[in-house]
Amino acid sequence: MTIFEYSRQQLEKFYNEQVSLLAEYKAKGLKLDMSRGKPAPEQLDLTNEMLTHCLDGDHISERGVDCRNYGVLDGIFEAKRLLMPMLGIGRYEIIIGGNSSLQLMYDTIARAMLLGVKGSPKPWCKCDRVKWLCPSPGYDRHFAMCEAFGIEMITVPMNADGPDMDMVEKLVSEDEEIKGIWCVPKYANPTGVTYSDEVVKRFANLKPKAPDFRIFWDNAYCVHDLYDEPENLLNILEECKKTGKQDMVFIFGSTSKISFPGGGIAAIGASEENISFMKEQMSYQTIGYDKLNQLRHAKFFKDFDGLMEHMKKHRSIIKPKFEIVLNALDEQIKPLGIGKWSNPKGGYFVSFNGEEGTAKRIVALCAETGVVLTKAGAAFPYGKDPEDKNIRIAPTYPTCDELKAAMEVFCVAVKLATAEALLNK
Amino acid sequence: MTIFEYSRQQLEKFYNEQVSLLAEYKAKGLKLDMSRGKPAPEQLDLTNEMLTHCLDGDHISERGVDCRNYGVLDGIFEAKRLLMPMLGIGRYEIIIGGNSSLQLMYDTIARAMLLGVKGSPKPWCKCDRVKWLCPSPGYDRHFAMCEAFGIEMITVPMNADGPDMDMVEKLVSEDEEIKGIWCVPKYANPTGVTYSDEVVKRFANLKPKAPDFRIFWDNAYCVHDLYDEPENLLNILEECKKTGKQDMVFIFGSTSKISFPGGGIAAIGASEENISFMKEQMSYQTIGYDKLNQLRHAKFFKDFDGLMEHMKKHRSIIKPKFEIVLNALDEQIKPLGIGKWSNPKGGYFVSFNGEEGTAKRIVALCAETGVVLTKAGAAFPYGKDPEDKNIRIAPTYPTCDELKAAMEVFCVAVKLATAEALLNK
Repeated sequence: MTIFEYSRQQLEKFYNEQVSLLAEYKAKGLKLDMSRGKPAPEQLDLTNEMLTHCLDGDHISERGVDCRNYGVLDGIFEAKRLLMPMLGIGRYEIIIGGNSSLQLMYDTIARAMLLGVKGSPKPWCKCDRVKWLCPSPGYDRHFAMCEAFGIEMITVPMNADGPDMDMVEKLVSEDEEIKGIWCVPKYANPTGVTYSDEVVKRFANLKPKAPDFRIFWDNAYCVHDLYDEPENLLNILEECKKTGKQDMVFIFGSTSKISFPGGGIAAIGASEENISFMKEQMSYQTIGYDKLNQLRHAKFFKDFDGLMEHMKKHRSIIKPKFEIVLNALDEQIKPLGIGKWSNPKGGYFVSFNGEEGTAKRIVALCAETGVVLTKAGAAFPYGKDPEDKNIRIAPTYPTCDELKAAMEVFCVAVKLATAEALLNK
Repeated sequence: MTIFEYSRQQLEKFYNEQVSLLAEYKAKGLKLDMSRGKPAPEQLDLTNEMLTHCLDGDHISERGVDCRNYGVLDGIFEAKRLLMPMLGIGRYEIIIGGNSSLQLMYDTIARAMLLGVKGSPKPWCKCDRVKWLCPSPGYDRHFAMCEAFGIEMITVPMNADGPDMDMVEKLVSEDEEIKGIWCVPKYANPTGVTYSDEVVKRFANLKPKAPDFRIFWDNAYCVHDLYDEPENLLNILEECKKTGKQDMVFIFGSTSKISFPGGGIAAIGASEENISFMKEQMSYQTIGYDKLNQLRHAKFFKDFDGLMEHMKKHRSIIKPKFEIVLNALDEQIKPLGIGKWSNPKGGYFVSFNGEEGTAKRIVALCAETGVVLTKAGAAFPYGKDPEDKNIRIAPTYPTCDELKAAMEVFCVAVKLATAEALLNK
């Protein structure tokens, strides 16, 4: 029997049981954090060797660059070679950046605002208004960035195969104030969706009214598969070349969840013309990024095959954690008929949709009980989930035991909040 | 007898001698680079150990932060403690950035343009015009940055004790479009000048018309002394606190010429209020900079005393190079009465002023002979030296033998260009 079939009496009893259970958990004084997509310490241990003997007495790149000294704005070749296949781009289509792809995205928008991108009639900050399409639920930091820049966000629904392309096509072709769209095309944050071939092709075929419209393709989880058969994402840059719109896309990625978050290397991919244009602009910002860290990564992983092998080690650590989350939901929430959630084949999140109007309450109940979740609504522009039902669960950081405890709390909170909502109806 | 006392006949003979000499050098096929302030490989060897065993099995900061993972936007405490005394700032007055102080400066201006600084009536990009004071000769990358942002540069003469403060005071108090000034206050690039106490005090007493005017205090060479008795620079932030104008200054520095250029750590210093304001703005750009590199630096140098000890090793390598340059000029150019040059007590440059209208010619003659110098005029806004006489000499990168050869060429080029100019008068 689902919770929706309960009599009022059954519902009240059920509610009271959950209140007692939550009080018991509260008494335990838990302190668990499932708020961010943060790798666990044992994942970081996998690349510890990179920090020690990796550079023993050898700081010279294959092409003779002393990586300890100034220069080489776009990065050393072996670092490019490592990340080119990861992002599906060629040798003249890549710039290796600093330690953060988020920073590369911010800097790319900041440059567009102040200087414009290739083909901009004027810098975006000189436009009356700049608008952005935001497939939602999406990545909270993407949306926060738009908000900081004063860019008006337009929510686009996320379907099972990617953003609602009817809406995307219509909006970009009609409104020249729309300058960009956020995409996390593989194992999306937080929905876990990988864009279908058709969606990618429709992106490559967009006919934006703004001549300087850009797709921000944040391929953060491109090699972060949880299963032997990875979901396949079509190569956006290649598709765009076929339609002659190769300047329409900026691709981002990093090793933050491959080596070290904050101690990895990031990259931007784009058409050769975009890359040249950006390099010129970037030359005023920096003489170059940290090439020693680039060399460290190239030496440690050796090549893209080595990097992919390494990802299997991450998988063996985090897959059981995803299973703990999904098992708990399947066992405790599914029989009650409450909500829906993703069953991701990769990435860092499980996206949970409770009943309408319960997400904030669930997150608050968890917080009171010592379990920190991402703020409810965070996955929507301006932090506002119109239905107040989406919660992002990040299973990777806690230990398996901690995660089990946290999911116990979470499931009770879901039950309590749902019963409460039904009683108040 | 100086060259100015030569008869026309003597001058012609002298000129022809230099032409022959330069042809001889040219035949040698030299390839020498004195264009940038780049440390020599043997300077970089001094910190090689930082790249290997420094982090052996220990990635946890004093305060328990796992430096391999996300977080701590403003940097780990031991990195702050290392750089606080270097920049003369307190624990709440510092943010540790990435690998480049230039990037911190760029980002600071970019944020000011797009979002404004604390106290800005509006973002600078919304102003009709933004102007900047540029003490010159100065650092070419500072000026290039202004040019890239479309900021109008106003040249301010450099005196022996710092910028012409009468002019600075007058301009900033009268023109609210002036939002900033570039300063390299110690061993300035390229003049080697350290600002006098009076100049620093006058900076702290500025009464700018723009409420959001900022002094950009690029203390790039703060610990880069060439002699036992370093020149002393007054603490600008402390002076500004005395006048209640502590929000008026942004201080920048890095270990680029202490550890590795491009592989070091950079910092920004400012009032506590400015730092809080900036941290909030920066939180949209990045989750945090590379804390592993911060930890590496803190562990290697241990403390500021350790860092200062380390600087003595750099000094022992580069001081002889400065002597080669100065000896060559003293022996070969001074007796002829040509030009003037700096005798810096620290920093990375010798600033050479030839006769009016000869700098471009000297740089071109050197280039033809295989000796690359910084572009003539580079030390002035828009790359235009009004008198075409200033040349920046960067002695650190070449070996002593290379430098001797390069200075031979340089001195002959100076003689040739000067004689040529006199003959053409």
